[in-house]
Amino acid sequence: MLTFYNEHHAQHHGRSGVVGANQSAYREVPQRADLVVSELKRRGLGQIVIPHGVSLASLERVHTARYLHFLRHAWQAWLALDATNAGRDAFAASWPVRAMRVDLEPEGILGRLGLFSTDATTPLMAGTWMAAKAGADCAINAAHALRLGERGSFALTRPPGQHAGADYYGGACFLNNAALAAQHLLDDGVKRVAILDIGYHHGNGTQDIFYARKDVLVTSIHVDPRTSYPFYAGHADETGIADGLGLNLNVPLAPGSNGAQWFAALETACLKIAMYGAEAIVVSLGVDTFSGDPASRFGLASADFLRIGERIAHLDLPVVFVLEGGSVVAELGTNVVNVLEGFETAN
Amino acid sequence: MLTFYNEHHAQHHGRSGVVGANQSAYREVPQRADLVVSELKRRGLGQIVIPHGVSLASLERVHTARYLHFLRHAWQAWLALDATNAGRDAFAASWPVRAMRVDLEPEGILGRLGLFSTDATTPLMAGTWMAAKAGADCAINAAHALRLGERGSFALTRPPGQHAGADYYGGACFLNNAALAAQHLLDDGVKRVAILDIGYHHGNGTQDIFYARKDVLVTSIHVDPRTSYPFYAGHADETGIADGLGLNLNVPLAPGSNGAQWFAALETACLKIAMYGAEAIVVSLGVDTFSGDPASRFGLASADFLRIGERIAHLDLPVVFVLEGGSVVAELGTNVVNVLEGFETAN
Repeated sequence: MLTFYNEHHAQHHGRSGVVGANQSAYREVPQRADLVVSELKRRGLGQIVIPHGVSLASLERVHTARYLHFLRHAWQAWLALDATNAGRDAFAASWPVRAMRVDLEPEGILGRLGLFSTDATTPLMAGTWMAAKAGADCAINAAHALRLGERGSFALTRPPGQHAGADYYGGACFLNNAALAAQHLLDDGVKRVAILDIGYHHGNGTQDIFYARKDVLVTSIHVDPRTSYPFYAGHADETGIADGLGLNLNVPLAPGSNGAQWFAALETACLKIAMYGAEAIVVSLGVDTFSGDPASRFGLASADFLRIGERIAHLDLPVVFVLEGGSVVAELGTNVVNVLEGFETAN
Repeated sequence: MLTFYNEHHAQHHGRSGVVGANQSAYREVPQRADLVVSELKRRGLGQIVIPHGVSLASLERVHTARYLHFLRHAWQAWLALDATNAGRDAFAASWPVRAMRVDLEPEGILGRLGLFSTDATTPLMAGTWMAAKAGADCAINAAHALRLGERGSFALTRPPGQHAGADYYGGACFLNNAALAAQHLLDDGVKRVAILDIGYHHGNGTQDIFYARKDVLVTSIHVDPRTSYPFYAGHADETGIADGLGLNLNVPLAPGSNGAQWFAALETACLKIAMYGAEAIVVSLGVDTFSGDPASRFGLASADFLRIGERIAHLDLPVVFVLEGGSVVAELGTNVVNVLEGFETAN
């Protein structure tokens, strides 16, 4: 299992989030990646390498040029707005909901922050672009590794990506690493890619990116969005449109669901992937389904993550694992690496 | 000029807004109405009366039942979420942008706050419903007064309304008082109503409510939304759809526009209203176009507001004035009452 990792992720270190008008400590922290790196090294699960930098054109295969331009320059515009802004992360204050327009880009940074985001809780700062780009490098390099003969590869990335759309950030995500990996596989000649998103929250960005496409099947197991973020996507009746009709599978589970219920959903997703005729899989590897994760109301135990890796291996396809969510808990590294080890052992 | 005023507006007194992750003093304060009341009394411009309470059914002529239910019960749900919430206003944290869904209502208050709002800066608190409802009472009573023979009436309301849509709040607005007044006029037998929104920011909620309808013409003069809130609506090419095609007029002006430029835009709007064949007018009376308003980058002087009232009088139609924006400055009452006095004098 080849792992791609870039220490530049630590350039993104949100000082605060805003929830209900209250600043709160931001939980998507560099320590998350450190815990996974440590556990990977402890078990000796394979080489950890620094990815090559990919071109902006590679990112434009998934994200709009307008959005990427914004992300690269947002911090400078934020600083130019107010001299005291250097001391605080950038957040949007209003958003284009309902019929409001997204075709015209506002001139100022406040309007542009809202245009390109979905929430008031995702901090953007000086190092955000460098960190997000480093993560995208990891994801695309990990996808490329499959072409070079790897059976499995791991993009050890943060910030995560599954809530980022083609032209918006949110839910702690800026660039959709899993989507970039899937697109790279297609661009490398793979005909059909399946994405399996196993994080606690629905990967609304990933769904959105591929919703009308037939070359990527998106499957996701997550907490019912009626009860939790992202609230406005991830329902069972979202099955794709146009060429993508029938190629989006959401399996929302009630808060409090136990391991048996979760693994039944995994079977449903795996069956869908097998029937689709995927040639490769990208796993959005969130471990915030863990019973001990403060964000979770699911009942998965650490040993369950070994079983998840085994079940994925039985699909008998090359797999890119992309790290997504998971709070800082003692078991974070264990849970992530359990998935990888379960996959390696069963392969 | 009969004025409708209800002191319950003061039940809505936001403790803080959130802009760019920073709490800031909230500027849409009860003192705004106090200043206008004082100036009205000083000039003796007519009786000030307390409105009768209108039915929920009257509000449902403009707003959805689901949204009204939310507004009435949101504070209790906010309190139930966290015992410490009594000490802070409620704000949303994420929003349904792009293709995200608004048909399914989340179960919890956080998801519902986002579903029914547009920004992170509009505080909702214990008295918000009572204040907003009192304002709607004023607006509908003021519209009703025209039927009873008044040539002009004034709804002295806050919170303002022009940014509130059929099912969302934002921009300091909860119930769209101008839209409720227009709808009441129609329900009273008026065939065609024109809305003239002269506040500094585009009245996106009002536009949205009537965008596909032919019985209400919406005209608005405001700062170019490329440069200022609401950013994602208010452009010149938004002219209505379906039955409402051609019946929405936006005249965005560049920041720094002077009085002459502003009055040229007013001529454009008045011509449109005259050609439409309106039988009554609702004026969204924002005075944040004043050169001394901290929100404004327009150059209107206090004397200009007299001229505005005179020009509206020359349309020779009955008019409901509804108070919208305007920061607390020494001239706030003067500017508002100047419009009313200009109208009265020329009528």
